[in-house]
Amino acid sequence: MTKNKALVIFSGGQDSTTCLYWAIDKFGQNNVKALSFDYGQRHAIELESAKKIAQLASVPHQVIPINTFNAIQNNALTGNIEVENTTGENGLPNTFVPGRNLIFITFAAAIAYQDKITDLITGVAQTDYSGYPDCRENTIESLQKTIALGMEYEVKIHTPLMHLNKQQTVKLAEKIGAMEAMAYTHTCYNGQFPPCGECPACLLREKGFKAAGVEDPLLTRANANV
Amino acid sequence: MTKNKALVIFSGGQDSTTCLYWAIDKFGQNNVKALSFDYGQRHAIELESAKKIAQLASVPHQVIPINTFNAIQNNALTGNIEVENTTGENGLPNTFVPGRNLIFITFAAAIAYQDKITDLITGVAQTDYSGYPDCRENTIESLQKTIALGMEYEVKIHTPLMHLNKQQTVKLAEKIGAMEAMAYTHTCYNGQFPPCGECPACLLREKGFKAAGVEDPLLTRANANV
Repeated sequence: MTKNKALVIFSGGQDSTTCLYWAIDKFGQNNVKALSFDYGQRHAIELESAKKIAQLASVPHQVIPINTFNAIQNNALTGNIEVENTTGENGLPNTFVPGRNLIFITFAAAIAYQDKITDLITGVAQTDYSGYPDCRENTIESLQKTIALGMEYEVKIHTPLMHLNKQQTVKLAEKIGAMEAMAYTHTCYNGQFPPCGECPACLLREKGFKAAGVEDPLLTRANANV
Repeated sequence: MTKNKALVIFSGGQDSTTCLYWAIDKFGQNNVKALSFDYGQRHAIELESAKKIAQLASVPHQVIPINTFNAIQNNALTGNIEVENTTGENGLPNTFVPGRNLIFITFAAAIAYQDKITDLITGVAQTDYSGYPDCRENTIESLQKTIALGMEYEVKIHTPLMHLNKQQTVKLAEKIGAMEAMAYTHTCYNGQFPPCGECPACLLREKGFKAAGVEDPLLTRANANV
């Protein structure tokens, strides 16, 4: 039986790297493609991580530009505002770009449509979802319906991490052989390597690895100064 | 009572110009903003029309870039493929950009979110919808739900032309005072002024004005060589 083709929305972070290896495990390496968006991230290190990991995983990697978010607003991930571990007046973190995942997934679906890819994979999770409503399961289910109607194309959106906490995500990554790649993932909100260890993203990552009883390969690499 | 603020997705074409005046009529001129996307249209004349008409209507006009569609594909509206009055193997016109309206509306909703605008207006219509599934009412309804979930923000998407044919759209435009602006709208797929009169878009426009028994102000302007 021919396996489906899969497209992984891939930032080069811990979660989407886990998703990439999950997709390789499920669909077979020859059927998986990684897709990154160059949307004006504050830190170019993210796209470098993505490129490196896609090479390591031996899957094709496409980088697609989106110049729209920066035009719409300045915010902590694309602009010059300091990242703080606080929420804005709307109760959402100040890293919130309204609709970012809706846009990413819709563009990914447009590429899937053209390339006759039937399965999309995204690393969104509502467990540790940090206040982003576009990471929730009901949002993703609704978007899948909208895309099916709007493109007349049924694409299945997989969210393998949706109900996992960070500890469980680390365990999953270990099980499916993503640990070598994990050394090259980027997580730090401050764009640092070695990671700052103090921003909310670093702290959440550290907590997950500790709870899973696994050493973080990124820190091993940082300590080895490689 | 304070009226809602409204954002009109505005291409400078016949339909979205009708929507702009519909919005001014419904929400009041001071509460309406026009939004155009610079997404790599083949014809710069479209954005020039939009700018001119927004001035004429005395509403603020924002142009936001999207460089993603061109990166994803070449197609008749953004690339160098000849427009033909035919359909591709998928049964859709070869001007189809998968998900284009989904993306436009989602970005518009992100702007609405930031500017505390509660109402979006788009000129999509399923009557003469030319095969685009993202113009249909059930798609728009589903997208409205998806945006409400994904942004935690309730934005109402108005589609005043959804069930009108071109004749009825012309009648509506006349009723709400959009005819002066209609002289500056752009419709021709070949990007010509005076319009070519032969492409599917010109023919559909001509048919609508004829059926409504109204002279097309664009042709009047073309004949007057203004």
